[in-house]
Amino acid sequence: MNGADALLSTLVANEVTACFANPGTSEMQFVAALDRSPKMRPVLCLFEGVATGAADGYGRIADRPACTLLHLGPGYANGAANLHNARRAHTPIVNVIGDHATYHRQYDAPLNSDIAALAAPNSLWVRSADSPDAVAGLAAEAVAASYGPPGGPVSLILPADSAWLETATPDVIAQKPVRPAPAGSAVEAAARALKAAARPVILIGGQACRAEGLAQAARLEAAGIRVMCDTFVARQPRGAGSFAPARMPYFGEMALKDLDGVDLMVFAGTTQPVAFFAYPDRPSVLVPQGCATLSLASRAEDAVAGLAALADAMGAPRTGPSQSLKRPDTAPSGALSPQLAGLSMARHLPEGAIVCDDSVTSGGGVAVPCMTAAPHEVLALTGGAIGIGLPLAVGAAVAAPERKVVSLNGDGAAMYTVQALWTLARENLDVTVVVFANNSYRILNIEMTRTGAGAAGPQAARLLGLGDPAIDWVSLAKGLGLPAVRCTTAEAFEKAFAGAMAQRGPMLIEAAIP
Amino acid sequence: MNGADALLSTLVANEVTACFANPGTSEMQFVAALDRSPKMRPVLCLFEGVATGAADGYGRIADRPACTLLHLGPGYANGAANLHNARRAHTPIVNVIGDHATYHRQYDAPLNSDIAALAAPNSLWVRSADSPDAVAGLAAEAVAASYGPPGGPVSLILPADSAWLETATPDVIAQKPVRPAPAGSAVEAAARALKAAARPVILIGGQACRAEGLAQAARLEAAGIRVMCDTFVARQPRGAGSFAPARMPYFGEMALKDLDGVDLMVFAGTTQPVAFFAYPDRPSVLVPQGCATLSLASRAEDAVAGLAALADAMGAPRTGPSQSLKRPDTAPSGALSPQLAGLSMARHLPEGAIVCDDSVTSGGGVAVPCMTAAPHEVLALTGGAIGIGLPLAVGAAVAAPERKVVSLNGDGAAMYTVQALWTLARENLDVTVVVFANNSYRILNIEMTRTGAGAAGPQAARLLGLGDPAIDWVSLAKGLGLPAVRCTTAEAFEKAFAGAMAQRGPMLIEAAIP
Repeated sequence: MNGADALLSTLVANEVTACFANPGTSEMQFVAALDRSPKMRPVLCLFEGVATGAADGYGRIADRPACTLLHLGPGYANGAANLHNARRAHTPIVNVIGDHATYHRQYDAPLNSDIAALAAPNSLWVRSADSPDAVAGLAAEAVAASYGPPGGPVSLILPADSAWLETATPDVIAQKPVRPAPAGSAVEAAARALKAAARPVILIGGQACRAEGLAQAARLEAAGIRVMCDTFVARQPRGAGSFAPARMPYFGEMALKDLDGVDLMVFAGTTQPVAFFAYPDRPSVLVPQGCATLSLASRAEDAVAGLAALADAMGAPRTGPSQSLKRPDTAPSGALSPQLAGLSMARHLPEGAIVCDDSVTSGGGVAVPCMTAAPHEVLALTGGAIGIGLPLAVGAAVAAPERKVVSLNGDGAAMYTVQALWTLARENLDVTVVVFANNSYRILNIEMTRTGAGAAGPQAARLLGLGDPAIDWVSLAKGLGLPAVRCTTAEAFEKAFAGAMAQRGPMLIEAAIP
Repeated sequence: MNGADALLSTLVANEVTACFANPGTSEMQFVAALDRSPKMRPVLCLFEGVATGAADGYGRIADRPACTLLHLGPGYANGAANLHNARRAHTPIVNVIGDHATYHRQYDAPLNSDIAALAAPNSLWVRSADSPDAVAGLAAEAVAASYGPPGGPVSLILPADSAWLETATPDVIAQKPVRPAPAGSAVEAAARALKAAARPVILIGGQACRAEGLAQAARLEAAGIRVMCDTFVARQPRGAGSFAPARMPYFGEMALKDLDGVDLMVFAGTTQPVAFFAYPDRPSVLVPQGCATLSLASRAEDAVAGLAALADAMGAPRTGPSQSLKRPDTAPSGALSPQLAGLSMARHLPEGAIVCDDSVTSGGGVAVPCMTAAPHEVLALTGGAIGIGLPLAVGAAVAAPERKVVSLNGDGAAMYTVQALWTLARENLDVTVVVFANNSYRILNIEMTRTGAGAAGPQAARLLGLGDPAIDWVSLAKGLGLPAVRCTTAEAFEKAFAGAMAQRGPMLIEAAIP
């Protein structure tokens, strides 16, 4: 057994059984060891941003880490943006980053770089296994660290000689940490403050937005307290049967308008809301002036237990409101828009579907009708780094092969990690990709005005538009092995989406919108 | 004038006139300011790895930096792998990285991260302009730092408020540093050692491989001293009229076989050669046992002056050998191979062409016949991070619109930054893209054996092959606005390549090879 075998064996022993990979020469021992470790499923990604985003999608659905296999510093760096998103989603991920042999590092060969420094900003934990005997122990440490709480990506550097040298170390089993429940005093303080407040809001995020958290939050809503949730949540049930808290608006001025008059904000599984970006003369913190704030449960604590205890302390009913099933009766018609596409999705999304959302300005149109669709879950873009909608879908589909996955993407966002289409085809994953093609970074046309930069002149406009030349998504998808169709009308989209939901396997729908 | 105007004004005043960009909200002021700075040419790239690789290609050809425009930490990270390559190429690049407003950073909004930490490993210089008055001075510092010597990427962080607030600072002109000539004593020591050695070699790299350096190196070859060059060189003339030093073989054991019996290695513009990767029981340093080494000129020194002084000290003739023009007379025929494609390239490459080479295992076949083609230049992959062949071509074509650019890519490499095809179409750049489609990470199939990992079993093989599904490059290119053709025979390639050389504008040739 060599170090690579020891790594795979300990990963599998810790239920890490999916590996999203783009290896190079320094990872060949790990690759060869995969044939001796049949419980690990390797998934080739043609760019590392696909691998890391897929690991994010996998971890959000499986609630345990996948590993990635990345080629030294540049391979890691290619995946860093989606690891930024995963850090913000608190998704457990174990990055395995191959490195030069320990004795070779000193010579600064062309691929040499400071991997630990590159990985630090987006890793909860970074270590290098500098001997084969250290591999199993550090792998278990890595797995444990990835769970946090509240969890996130970790980076285990594997020098080539630590992979190829022999070792006899046994598997090491990671201690999976437990989220501590918030202190009773925090629950009592929250209950006291809520009772005293005239217009309180409970803001939930992260773990509190999972099914169990929503059920407890709904009890508080039933007790007359307004519950809101973060704008972007890593994983949240939606549709019939779920409690649908009001969502914090993306734009700060809309959020503050919504919160006008609120005198207390209690946070569970999240922290005080802040504007996504700063703008001249607009506030950064989205808490109304004079409003008190209080933390019921931090992201590291068991927010579900906190909400349950708070609901009990408030004398809330055992159950709260939930969405009823109400699908649009008639198929939409006319020129396609995100809103009309959303109606078709609400009609045809199957129960248990997973929606991976990187659709930027088209997302709102879809979300509204899907609030009363069949029960499904939504994985959102948590860190603002576009290009996660396709990779998330790869990972979610590997984690839950029995569930339909729908990947919603802006055209600009989809181009970031377009290589993911090939992996969808290669692995024959049950994913329907929708690309909202408005030939524009539409959000930036909106933001340009908001930042006070003024209207785009000809030079600026060329940096905001994707229409010259227009991307032919059908041709692009076919080039990467995926069947695809272009829809310009709601009728065509209805037919394409209904068809996609009724069959298995990957396909792409270009939703051409104005 | 706001801080963004001040930045653009100082950049243009320092001859930084191309901006490879993918902006976001925090960069909107810079984008708007482009309309007030007509001398700066913005080029939209649909992924930051394209932008940074294009800046590398631009800098190698223009010998002055382009700037990039990147969106916070994730935008920078997406471009980091090609900045790794640029660091190894010593290409001057000024990264402009937008950040949150200075006062907004403390709130850790979703896109917040430690940009300076992310940028440090691949930047010669990193600073944040935390007030609008600091922008012009730091921009000039950044430009100066990018020149080194020996040069490389630098990173200027531009908080949104530093961009939008007013300033009245004048342009600041950067002091362009001068490469010092090596000390006379170093030249004398080299001359003495060379005269005393039985089988010396002079190894040149970097600046010494430019036309001026090659001319001086050729004189030493004429004086009976063997001259070799680094395996991967940022920019090197090739073809008729150029001196063609022997190239260090990629594989260490071949390099050491080539160097067998050599008792002295003198380095000019480079350092001691090391193996690209370590392998069990194979040496890291590619210097024969017992061979003395000596530095004539470091990468930071003026290697051309050093070589000229050494040639004088050795009494070398005023000129040395150069390649004569010898193009293949007849068009190749039969099933296509890199070798046969190379024959067509040697026949039709126009004088002054720029070849951007990320063709991995197909590169050797092309290089041999092109040694006696019309004079052209080659930009190689210097840092081992694949995915630079297409971006380099974007940048080279922007820097030298009158020269034909040919981009050679392995299929695995081309997929890394495939978004570059769109920018080629958008900017109507005179670039002919060749993708050698062998449906495989061919190099890894070779390396797997060399690392002692053994033959690939079924799991491993799936990580090394790209054939399931095969990528349809013609469809992919058309999807991104580029005319394309697939060639399976040498006859078809000859026709396609000759046609591409005879016309202007971008196109793609899929060279289907076994």
